[in-house]
Amino acid sequence: MPRQSNNGTQFFRSKFMEEIANVLAQRYATEPIKKIWSATGRIILEREFWIAVMRAQRDLGIDIPAEAIAAYESVKNRVDLASINARERVTRHDVKARIEEFCALAGCEHIHKGMTSRDLTESVEQLQVFRSLEYIRIKTIAAVKRLAERAAETRDIAMTSRTHNVAAQLTTVGKRLAMFGEDMLVALRELDALIANYPARGVKGAVGTQLDLLTLFNHDFGKAVEFDARVRRHLGIPHALNATGQVYPRSLDFATIATLVHVGAGAASFAKTLRLMAGHELASEGFLPGQVGSSAMPHKMNSRSCERLDGLHVILKGYLSMAAALAGDQWNEGDVSCSVVRRVALPDSFFAIDAILETFLVILNQMEIYVPVIERERERYLPFLLTTTIMMEAVKRGVGRETAHEVIKKHAVATARDIRQGKIAHNDLFDRLAADGSLKLSRDDLAEIAKVAANETGTAGVQVDNFVAAAEALVAKFPEAAKIKPGAIL
Amino acid sequence: MPRQSNNGTQFFRSKFMEEIANVLAQRYATEPIKKIWSATGRIILEREFWIAVMRAQRDLGIDIPAEAIAAYESVKNRVDLASINARERVTRHDVKARIEEFCALAGCEHIHKGMTSRDLTESVEQLQVFRSLEYIRIKTIAAVKRLAERAAETRDIAMTSRTHNVAAQLTTVGKRLAMFGEDMLVALRELDALIANYPARGVKGAVGTQLDLLTLFNHDFGKAVEFDARVRRHLGIPHALNATGQVYPRSLDFATIATLVHVGAGAASFAKTLRLMAGHELASEGFLPGQVGSSAMPHKMNSRSCERLDGLHVILKGYLSMAAALAGDQWNEGDVSCSVVRRVALPDSFFAIDAILETFLVILNQMEIYVPVIERERERYLPFLLTTTIMMEAVKRGVGRETAHEVIKKHAVATARDIRQGKIAHNDLFDRLAADGSLKLSRDDLAEIAKVAANETGTAGVQVDNFVAAAEALVAKFPEAAKIKPGAIL
Amino acid sequence: MPRQSNNGTQFFRSKFMEEIANVLAQRYATEPIKKIWSATGRIILEREFWIAVMRAQRDLGIDIPAEAIAAYESVKNRVDLASINARERVTRHDVKARIEEFCALAGCEHIHKGMTSRDLTESVEQLQVFRSLEYIRIKTIAAVKRLAERAAETRDIAMTSRTHNVAAQLTTVGKRLAMFGEDMLVALRELDALIANYPARGVKGAVGTQLDLLTLFNHDFGKAVEFDARVRRHLGIPHALNATGQVYPRSLDFATIATLVHVGAGAASFAKTLRLMAGHELASEGFLPGQVGSSAMPHKMNSRSCERLDGLHVILKGYLSMAAALAGDQWNEGDVSCSVVRRVALPDSFFAIDAILETFLVILNQMEIYVPVIERERERYLPFLLTTTIMMEAVKRGVGRETAHEVIKKHAVATARDIRQGKIAHNDLFDRLAADGSLKLSRDDLAEIAKVAANETGTAGVQVDNFVAAAEALVAKFPEAAKIKPGAIL
Amino acid sequence: MPRQSNNGTQFFRSKFMEEIANVLAQRYATEPIKKIWSATGRIILEREFWIAVMRAQRDLGIDIPAEAIAAYESVKNRVDLASINARERVTRHDVKARIEEFCALAGCEHIHKGMTSRDLTESVEQLQVFRSLEYIRIKTIAAVKRLAERAAETRDIAMTSRTHNVAAQLTTVGKRLAMFGEDMLVALRELDALIANYPARGVKGAVGTQLDLLTLFNHDFGKAVEFDARVRRHLGIPHALNATGQVYPRSLDFATIATLVHVGAGAASFAKTLRLMAGHELASEGFLPGQVGSSAMPHKMNSRSCERLDGLHVILKGYLSMAAALAGDQWNEGDVSCSVVRRVALPDSFFAIDAILETFLVILNQMEIYVPVIERERERYLPFLLTTTIMMEAVKRGVGRETAHEVIKKHAVATARDIRQGKIAHNDLFDRLAADGSLKLSRDDLAEIAKVAANETGTAGVQVDNFVAAAEALVAKFPEAAKIKPGAIL
Repeated sequence: MPRQSNNGTQFFRSKFMEEIANVLAQRYATEPIKKIWSATGRIILEREFWIAVMRAQRDLGIDIPAEAIAAYESVKNRVDLASINARERVTRHDVKARIEEFCALAGCEHIHKGMTSRDLTESVEQLQVFRSLEYIRIKTIAAVKRLAERAAETRDIAMTSRTHNVAAQLTTVGKRLAMFGEDMLVALRELDALIANYPARGVKGAVGTQLDLLTLFNHDFGKAVEFDARVRRHLGIPHALNATGQVYPRSLDFATIATLVHVGAGAASFAKTLRLMAGHELASEGFLPGQVGSSAMPHKMNSRSCERLDGLHVILKGYLSMAAALAGDQWNEGDVSCSVVRRVALPDSFFAIDAILETFLVILNQMEIYVPVIERERERYLPFLLTTTIMMEAVKRGVGRETAHEVIKKHAVATARDIRQGKIAHNDLFDRLAADGSLKLSRDDLAEIAKVAANETGTAGVQVDNFVAAAEALVAKFPEAAKIKPGAIL
Repeated sequence: MPRQSNNGTQFFRSKFMEEIANVLAQRYATEPIKKIWSATGRIILEREFWIAVMRAQRDLGIDIPAEAIAAYESVKNRVDLASINARERVTRHDVKARIEEFCALAGCEHIHKGMTSRDLTESVEQLQVFRSLEYIRIKTIAAVKRLAERAAETRDIAMTSRTHNVAAQLTTVGKRLAMFGEDMLVALRELDALIANYPARGVKGAVGTQLDLLTLFNHDFGKAVEFDARVRRHLGIPHALNATGQVYPRSLDFATIATLVHVGAGAASFAKTLRLMAGHELASEGFLPGQVGSSAMPHKMNSRSCERLDGLHVILKGYLSMAAALAGDQWNEGDVSCSVVRRVALPDSFFAIDAILETFLVILNQMEIYVPVIERERERYLPFLLTTTIMMEAVKRGVGRETAHEVIKKHAVATARDIRQGKIAHNDLFDRLAADGSLKLSRDDLAEIAKVAANETGTAGVQVDNFVAAAEALVAKFPEAAKIKPGAIL
Repeated sequence: MPRQSNNGTQFFRSKFMEEIANVLAQRYATEPIKKIWSATGRIILEREFWIAVMRAQRDLGIDIPAEAIAAYESVKNRVDLASINARERVTRHDVKARIEEFCALAGCEHIHKGMTSRDLTESVEQLQVFRSLEYIRIKTIAAVKRLAERAAETRDIAMTSRTHNVAAQLTTVGKRLAMFGEDMLVALRELDALIANYPARGVKGAVGTQLDLLTLFNHDFGKAVEFDARVRRHLGIPHALNATGQVYPRSLDFATIATLVHVGAGAASFAKTLRLMAGHELASEGFLPGQVGSSAMPHKMNSRSCERLDGLHVILKGYLSMAAALAGDQWNEGDVSCSVVRRVALPDSFFAIDAILETFLVILNQMEIYVPVIERERERYLPFLLTTTIMMEAVKRGVGRETAHEVIKKHAVATARDIRQGKIAHNDLFDRLAADGSLKLSRDDLAEIAKVAANETGTAGVQVDNFVAAAEALVAKFPEAAKIKPGAIL
Repeated sequence: MPRQSNNGTQFFRSKFMEEIANVLAQRYATEPIKKIWSATGRIILEREFWIAVMRAQRDLGIDIPAEAIAAYESVKNRVDLASINARERVTRHDVKARIEEFCALAGCEHIHKGMTSRDLTESVEQLQVFRSLEYIRIKTIAAVKRLAERAAETRDIAMTSRTHNVAAQLTTVGKRLAMFGEDMLVALRELDALIANYPARGVKGAVGTQLDLLTLFNHDFGKAVEFDARVRRHLGIPHALNATGQVYPRSLDFATIATLVHVGAGAASFAKTLRLMAGHELASEGFLPGQVGSSAMPHKMNSRSCERLDGLHVILKGYLSMAAALAGDQWNEGDVSCSVVRRVALPDSFFAIDAILETFLVILNQMEIYVPVIERERERYLPFLLTTTIMMEAVKRGVGRETAHEVIKKHAVATARDIRQGKIAHNDLFDRLAADGSLKLSRDDLAEIAKVAANETGTAGVQVDNFVAAAEALVAKFPEAAKIKPGAIL
């Protein structure tokens, strides 16, 4: 028996079906997002949409009693998939089955007036996207908040920054964390704009001309326009599309997933850097009490969650490439070549970004910073990091600038080489410079310079403060973010 | 001789070099975008950045005479690549060569104070992106404007819409055009938000701690902050990044190119649909006088420009996938794994979107609509499109709803089959229904119904009007858009 | 309770879990592929691998009784997930639980000697890939066979070919089908090479140095080498990797999915072309008896399956982009950043290609060709397609070549224009040429030329024959392909 | 003046044109590949194709004198772009201009018989691809050879392997190199298969039916077939396509670029790992004499070439995603939506892979391994790596297995923690175990165990030997590989 519709809740059965789950939903995503994209969640959104439509129709003079709407409202969360499936086996039409079920629960028949199937399915999918975006915004702010807390804690821990993966200048641990947070703040502004501008297709009929709706309103164009606006107001979606075909432009799905990729980028860079730091034992993603990294090697503290986070970001980009293929590929008023793609890419993108943020929150909670190792590294590289300062001090003492540069360069290169060749175990550049004498700086002078400069981290602290303030402002605006706590992850 | 820097204007020579051009720049992109990304254009932006820095420094008490700044300003457009290259051969450092050249032209030495190379290169690349985005916004509005004009012209030409590439219901040519314009309007809002939120990295030093700048300002943190703000004001970039490393987050480049993909989507869908319409001879992308489609087949009017436009959109998505690989891949304070990728993907993305818009404008200017063919198609499918209306009329005449449905379905299926089997040349459903008699509708009754319904296109016209108004509002806000005219394309 | 392993069959439970299935497995893929990637299927492959290892160890002198191996073999298909899960709750280690279960079933303990977890999991995943590839090869050949049958049926139906989506020259329906089959034949050769060269990682230990295995074999290097070869022989995998780390190179997964994209390309182009043909009513993907395309418009025969097939190909390319991100991204001896990506992309790629082939087979079975419509189209365009022939005939009659060309071009352009302007309903180029007289060809002469040329399709028929022969040769080599029949699809 | 053809060598001029080069060709690719894809190189391949066609036609009885062919052959490398451009300004047709030029040089007119433009352009582009693939194979083998030499040199340098970026077990430097080489060997087998199966479209006419060619051969189908075979033999392309449309299947371009991505994967993983090793100062990509990493920090040895190599691999994957969009997107017998995409993606993919291999060769030549640092790292982690061995020794001395495990785990975890907390500077696990006493192993016993195990690297050395042998076998088969030497890179 072939199915009659693209949007059913009942499926063919397979012997292996129960063993092949949606991996992202099963292992990584959390309840709020799964609820939106589950069969039950979709039915609830569908019912909310029908209710919004009835309210708008009633406002505009269609004869729908307030009690009827209240009746629907009162049963909207009573989802019985088995009952709906039983109805579908009779009607052989999934939308019809769901209409019957909802009406039977409410005890009246007022939904779906003047609508085609597409008016329902496009709108419900947009609602799933929109509600998911709102949730992801809250969760992203929760992640920024937690990151800001960790940055504040480590605001003044001076550490060796790295460019090209080798030691560069001093920074602080907190500033490094804030740096990844900055990436997320930029992405949050994009997410805000997406939500603020998100446009609903609305009830536009089979090819976008609203024929059935106009019939319902006796060809009163003003009412059709007003109806659209009221439905959206009921749903909380800010904008409306004006001219569409059978479907809303799929470039909107592309823009949505692109924004999710952006939202995940800061966390992914953070995770990559924490994997690098763990390799130097400067930090680790931490372990739950009792956790073991490897049964064979008890010292092994693997960055499994960071690795997973980076993998999830790769997955998200893969879904983006699916969505990209749909953008700019509309034939006439639309076809359903996009259908199977959206069925995979939309929920799975939200599962992936939710999993990224969840994993990120867990890591932020457990991350350990090993200050003594950080100090040892800083000490090892410090003489190299201070060559410019030393040169200026030598010049103050009357040494020619070019001479000073030449002397320093010679000894610095030799020191670096001797360390790598194993000739020396510690960086003895200061000893060499003092012994050389040309700089007119004693070993004590150099030690004094190093002592001051060892904590010269410029605006690092200020940047952390700014980041913390930005995070606090976000939480003040979206206080629900403060309530999000990560669960246990695998 | 290995080069000392990543950002030079001088290059190694190859025997084949002059024969291997940047294809997108050479064949498809236009002067304004090429200027920004050319060696000369980059140097001018670099100089504008240095001037903005000097102004901000002077404002904050650094001793730079107003006359010096004026001197630099007066020579900023005098770019002599040969002279710069000659200097580079001596200094073996490209940035140093360009500093010397600019100072020599201005007759003084005040640029690049407190800056590292990255402060310059990151900022100039952001300027290239930002100025390109501003230009693309104008050009997109120009395209929307031209599309709106064509939609207004064709507002009321009723045509058969298609879903699944087969005839569905009536729409109008103008509404179909407006539908693709709607996609662009959504993208324009995203582009607006990107421009409004675009954040500059600013002068943050080698690893983002602003050490050198603080030295310049005698560790006055307030001045460092104010300096950043003033530089940006001079440049016209709205936002600042707070905490960055060596580089600004590459997710920003990703977000930029993603927005360009969105901007191109409406035009790409339009082009695809016009290729389909040309296959039915409903329309064509038009031809310049004297143009021939094929030397062998004189009737052949190929949609070459539409095909190219779609190909350019594919290319743009490829650059997006390059940029996506950089987002979330920052190691520590940054590396240059991104360098070669950005060198390719950033300019070429802007060349591609510029070429898309240019090609789109040319097509819009030349596109021909074949109304008689549209009418023939509409006539052929009309009986099918009106079955619901006919059913309602039959019911009015006392025929049972289920009976009417059954009768219509039987004859409609038979008619469709006979057409495909070649048994009939024209759609004779009305004759069959009249002959059957069960519907109580004569052939004349049916003709009358068809006459009215043949132009029932719902809110199609209103949607066109809304789209035109939206386009006009954009042009009113960005009047430069009205001046953009496409050149000749290949 | 955090899980101890990456490769379990037991999972955390979610309220919504049973409602969020793997869409591709649930709706589109078929049993043979789902079996391989299901929890049960994986356990069976794992057991086959353990048995192959025992056989090879026994061959090389390790004390494992033949009866023990036989005992394992006899129970390998008895998979009780509930029992395994119960064991895992005790051991808190998934591999250990599965070892215990298998040993308990067999009544002895001889598996997993000298192996680490990675030796098991990498090998089993390679087996899943390898067996899937073998199945996909058979199914692709089945598809080629069915395509060849349809091509043979339609070998000589002359039709208007299209380039740039507009009429070009004559071809035949069968040749058009063979053309897409050719794409599949090339892909099949790539698939053959992939299978023939597929290299197994084998039992290489935690970082690839085979330490534990050498211990088992008392540091007999020759035995370690021979062991590897024997295991592979038992499994039927042709090649071995020599030097690997913890994992086999992920570029191999990339190459695998890239080959699947290639395998799906011919079918995807076919589906796209059939969607175009359906738009002209030249053909349709057909309908099952009783199927309706749209409740509102009974004539509507939507190309839903073709659209889905194209969508599935887009999905497959998305998974490729995930796999591409892993190729060339190995850190040291490996990390598990790839783990979550492969968990999604590997099974889902095989589900997608299986669904493509299944959908393709269904379409091939049901596809209808509307010869009368094809003939009408050919007739309409024929005069244009014959202009070269007519010119040669005129020259034979003494008309100057340039004169003939000029005359024909003038009338052809005018005819094309008049058709599009609605001035004429049929292509009357022959009438115009006859009336003009300059070509010395009467209307009858032209009719005669048209009659001959209307079936001039060059080597089209021969190409169909060649394609059919190639398909038959494949089936002769892989006779299982003849047994594959598509099931009902949604 | 619009151009008449898609495949010209003459282009519109832009003020900025000479400043906007193809970055990949200009900065990174080498002469042999640039030659193939330059205007001159393309013209030479075009002439070779015409000559192959003439030879085959002459073989099959077409009246073309041997002297004429010899005349063409003798001038085929005399490419005067200015002269060709001058001819194009007259003819306004690029192919015609190139025909005239070649004929004028040869002093006769025998080329292009029975051919359409597509027969030429498709074939020449396939030749460009095929010759490029052959060159890339040689260069890949050269890279494998150089990698094998470096692996042989470092075959027995025991080092700490890493999984999850943290210390795992021992391996050797040589084995790590061989591991990346293994990836390349697998890719080379794919490349071999691609070259061995590469199918030429041949002279198939405007829509693939060979109408014009059959006319030339008086409808002798056998000759048309034989002609195809002979042309390919002259060109050295192994296979022929049977049924094609206007174009060969674009999935072939996809498969080609996918193979290039595979070829680059081993080098990209190597580069990423070397960047990680440089961060630990275990190795560096080396420096040319006189090179400085950073003017400010003389010790800085940046992995710029490795970073670039990884960036180039990202770029290559971006071109793959462009090509993927073309695979499965053929409309009817073909359109030119693919044209602009291939114009960018084909040459640039080859420039990118060439640049990857060139950069890889340079790195292999300059790479420095810092054995003392490797030894210090090994020493630091060794006690952890040996816990299993120690446990076995304790058991031999009569300690219970579970007791031993418990004791070791307790001290190992405490040691790891103390190191990170800065309580101890060196790994003193052996001291702790000796002091504890429960294992019945003295400090000397433990030292003895460590001494033996410090060089236990299993089959690492054998794997290196196998890899070297494989590399040598390849060079023996393709001796030109031995001649490839990298030039200076930027």
